[in-house]
Amino acid sequence: MDAYLLSIGDELLIGQTVNTNAAWLGERLSLMGLEVIEERTLADRNDRIRTALHDACAAADLVVITGGLGPTHDDLTKIAVADFLGVEMQRDDVLWGRLQTYYTERNRPVPERAAQIADMPAGFEKLANPIGTAPGLRFQGPASDNALLIVLPGVPAEMKAIFDASVQPLLADRTDLRSTAHRTLQTTGIGESDLQAEIGDAETLLPERVSLAYLPSTSGVRLRLTARADDPDTATQLLDAAEARIRERADAHIFATGNVSLAEALGRRLTDAQLTVSTAESATGGLVGDRLTNVPGSSSYYAGGVIAYANPVKINQLQVDAEVLSSHGAVSEPVARQMADGVRSLLGTDIGIATTGIAGPGGGSDAKPVGTVWIGYADAHGTHATHVRFVNDRHMNKALFATAALDMIRRQLNRREDRATASPRYDSAA
Amino acid sequence: MDAYLLSIGDELLIGQTVNTNAAWLGERLSLMGLEVIEERTLADRNDRIRTALHDACAAADLVVITGGLGPTHDDLTKIAVADFLGVEMQRDDVLWGRLQTYYTERNRPVPERAAQIADMPAGFEKLANPIGTAPGLRFQGPASDNALLIVLPGVPAEMKAIFDASVQPLLADRTDLRSTAHRTLQTTGIGESDLQAEIGDAETLLPERVSLAYLPSTSGVRLRLTARADDPDTATQLLDAAEARIRERADAHIFATGNVSLAEALGRRLTDAQLTVSTAESATGGLVGDRLTNVPGSSSYYAGGVIAYANPVKINQLQVDAEVLSSHGAVSEPVARQMADGVRSLLGTDIGIATTGIAGPGGGSDAKPVGTVWIGYADAHGTHATHVRFVNDRHMNKALFATAALDMIRRQLNRREDRATASPRYDSAA
Repeated sequence: MDAYLLSIGDELLIGQTVNTNAAWLGERLSLMGLEVIEERTLADRNDRIRTALHDACAAADLVVITGGLGPTHDDLTKIAVADFLGVEMQRDDVLWGRLQTYYTERNRPVPERAAQIADMPAGFEKLANPIGTAPGLRFQGPASDNALLIVLPGVPAEMKAIFDASVQPLLADRTDLRSTAHRTLQTTGIGESDLQAEIGDAETLLPERVSLAYLPSTSGVRLRLTARADDPDTATQLLDAAEARIRERADAHIFATGNVSLAEALGRRLTDAQLTVSTAESATGGLVGDRLTNVPGSSSYYAGGVIAYANPVKINQLQVDAEVLSSHGAVSEPVARQMADGVRSLLGTDIGIATTGIAGPGGGSDAKPVGTVWIGYADAHGTHATHVRFVNDRHMNKALFATAALDMIRRQLNRREDRATASPRYDSAA
Repeated sequence: MDAYLLSIGDELLIGQTVNTNAAWLGERLSLMGLEVIEERTLADRNDRIRTALHDACAAADLVVITGGLGPTHDDLTKIAVADFLGVEMQRDDVLWGRLQTYYTERNRPVPERAAQIADMPAGFEKLANPIGTAPGLRFQGPASDNALLIVLPGVPAEMKAIFDASVQPLLADRTDLRSTAHRTLQTTGIGESDLQAEIGDAETLLPERVSLAYLPSTSGVRLRLTARADDPDTATQLLDAAEARIRERADAHIFATGNVSLAEALGRRLTDAQLTVSTAESATGGLVGDRLTNVPGSSSYYAGGVIAYANPVKINQLQVDAEVLSSHGAVSEPVARQMADGVRSLLGTDIGIATTGIAGPGGGSDAKPVGTVWIGYADAHGTHATHVRFVNDRHMNKALFATAALDMIRRQLNRREDRATASPRYDSAA
């Protein structure tokens, strides 16, 4: 089964927006065993869209169109698709009802521009949008040269949500897809080179027909395993074997399997252990709390924290000793420990975690260059601190500091629970 | 003059690599006054490349092809281009000489794979590569439907280097290119539809040859003005006139010109006014502090804050009245006001800003649905609170709540300074 991608929007052609949707879809479809034969990025022009639809439907079994929907684009895509197929636009009762309700609640008539949202080409099915108002659309028939036509919004979060909810299951049902399975092992607290060294030569280690890709980010290194087999069960068995071999070598660094964030994985651990956390942040400025609270239900283990950006706040709110701060500096082991102790005590949580560092670009010195951070951790068993030196970029440093803080909690929990445990390895360049 | 972009490489189609080259080229060419009519991403396949070349040369005056060159791709692009034009590949003496020298120095014969690097389609001119070995290529003639054909490497740094060194000057010489200039006005605190309503019909309002694009995000709506003229000075004058007309109608919503974040713009205002800020965050969980501290130098106006995620923290640290919290709920006007007052007093800053809301997916009710937020603001002149109802997505809500908080400070500063002032408008759907 092959696929053709159409991305619609002037903003893509003039480089205002990078076409990440095409890359995401290309990857998803490839992993499912489809061959993505081509992609075309189109202007908001009815004639070009119709030409592209004609070529795409002739060339491929699946045509996925993203973008060109909504007020900014005057719903050009829907209209061009309808024109290409030779069908009329129809007002959908459910969408129209929703629109009317929305505007009635606000004592306004439905603006003309918004009304288009309720129109759909005749003969299309809706694909529910879990996070936005505009549904995806689906069609297959002689008019599309029997290609399966999928129309999705251009907003990445909405496009992905509709794809995951409706398109992926639809395609997975097709029996002519080969069995390719993938599995992601999420690691953190170790750089890519060190992780490769610990895991060793993947081609020797892993079963045949399983490949391993290293995907680093400021949240850690994702290990992506891909297995190709004749049937799904065999592919799964290959992945199980591959995962087991990697865990033999790198288990302490793996915090989750699948598309789970570090904060989510940590949240589950804290929930299971019934432990609460508070944060004392200097350089990260609230990022650790932000990441923890991105997880629904985090209020059951995260009480809150203090953003002690200015030194007086460290002293007055977190009971950091003024003399220690003065003699050792804010970015130091004793201050990190006192911040962790201080917030734990102040908010009455089981665990206190602290960050104090130099994100840059200013503030560095020979002794404490930009990228230096101390992470403090305090619980009923004691207080610890770790020093890391990261990079030169402010934004990246904040992200890396925050990841290191979350990972500190994770590794301490591993210790408490006698799970595979190791110190993080931040020594090498990458 | 119009342009068609062809990006070659399987790695693009399977999403291993995001197509940033197309965005960069699209932007560069648009700024020079060309219209980028379409882009196509192709597999490393001779037949598809030839088909695309045929379509592109027929449709546009300039065709830029990137990628598909070098050992990974077996120089497929060069061969496909030669096939399309019906010309032979020829060994270039200079390139061949360089190759021979390179391998001779290493006591090796030139490997067959590497030898291809020295081959070029007959009739092409080389475009020097300032940072790599493979030159770009250039051709124009009846065989290309008189389109100017440019072939560039896919490695971004090399592609850009050759473009800047050779392609840009080549195009700038063309007398039929006009001067295009852009300007971005950053707005926030108003939805796209309401902003369009306030600004009115752009075609009537703006000078001829100036177009306006609305680019919404969770940080606000960017207004991008584009002016086309015969020379850069005239283009600038057109932009000045356009900006003035927009400011007559929407000045209160504009926080910056150019690529400046809301937190940066606010930081400059606070620095100029010599005012300090502290944050009291519930639903945003630290995001407001994180955004403020993304700006270098923010320590001069941002002292820190309290992430009062759990209600006891609101009561114990921020002096929120327990009875008020109990009777009105955490997400209420009085609690928002007390949180703002509380943190301002606790940290001793000029301004206190507070967020208390329901990011979702859980926690909503008929009276207070998901997306509800109260923003509290306190300074020496008094305390205020604003209520907004945003969306259904947790991540987007946190971002929108944080933007609304930063914008609340901005609008209050406008009031203090007797600048253009208006309430934010969050009423409409988009």
